[in-house]
Amino acid sequence: LRVLARELAEDYPLVDLDTDAFEAARILAVDRLPGLVVTGTDGSPHAVLPGSQVVRFVVPEYIREDPSLARVIQEEEADQIAHQFAGRKVRDLLPPRPHALPVVRGDDTVLELAALMAQMRSPLVAVVDHGRIVGVVTAARLLALGCGAV
Amino acid sequence: LRVLARELAEDYPLVDLDTDAFEAARILAVDRLPGLVVTGTDGSPHAVLPGSQVVRFVVPEYIREDPSLARVIQEEEADQIAHQFAGRKVRDLLPPRPHALPVVRGDDTVLELAALMAQMRSPLVAVVDHGRIVGVVTAARLLALGCGAV
Repeated sequence: LRVLARELAEDYPLVDLDTDAFEAARILAVDRLPGLVVTGTDGSPHAVLPGSQVVRFVVPEYIREDPSLARVIQEEEADQIAHQFAGRKVRDLLPPRPHALPVVRGDDTVLELAALMAQMRSPLVAVVDHGRIVGVVTAARLLALGCGAV
Repeated sequence: LRVLARELAEDYPLVDLDTDAFEAARILAVDRLPGLVVTGTDGSPHAVLPGSQVVRFVVPEYIREDPSLARVIQEEEADQIAHQFAGRKVRDLLPPRPHALPVVRGDDTVLELAALMAQMRSPLVAVVDHGRIVGVVTAARLLALGCGAV
């Protein structure tokens, strides 16, 4: 008996290219997500933005190059982070070549899904039927299947 | 006022090189962790194993190379996953060159921590005092600080 991708898929918050960047970061933080699933403004699958890449956005470039310079910043960290998001959209968070969102069809097997996740080193895979994301499978969810925790 | 790494750090389950692989996968699954923090058997920081890399371990190599072959597997997916872990330890899950565990000191600032997380594209950073991991900061936790959700 095959377990199909759509059977394992869970609801997952989606953001689109025009979603407010602060709101997207808040969703990732509050739901403790491994990454943001980004769609085009038409709802089509677009990219996956791992949490570390959202963090990258809040760190000024000169500090990314020399983390010890973080000590010279006068502003409070929380404000520093919030200010980076102000007035920005999700499209501004994406790197020039964003990680493609790994996608399987609802009737693909979970082992195919696992192979794709491993190959693309992605924290999650989207399950798509008729061009629409019907759910997401995270690494934790997939492993729960093997550990009898689903 | 600086926010220090140790103020943001949270308790996080640690596994060591000799932890049973199935038990480690179960912890990642049940706690919905972005990755495993692996220590040496002496408790010293060793590696971070992102969820997608644990998933990689459960997918046979010939399927990783050609995911469509997943359809020829006769065994149920849940059993297939469980069997891969049987009798293995966390050291067996690690790739030949595992991702180094990003580490900051307790009195480093969270902006330094953020810079390191971004640079190493890691889902988390360990906070270490006197050679011991005193807590972990995930990307979600870090962003919660900027979103007023801490």
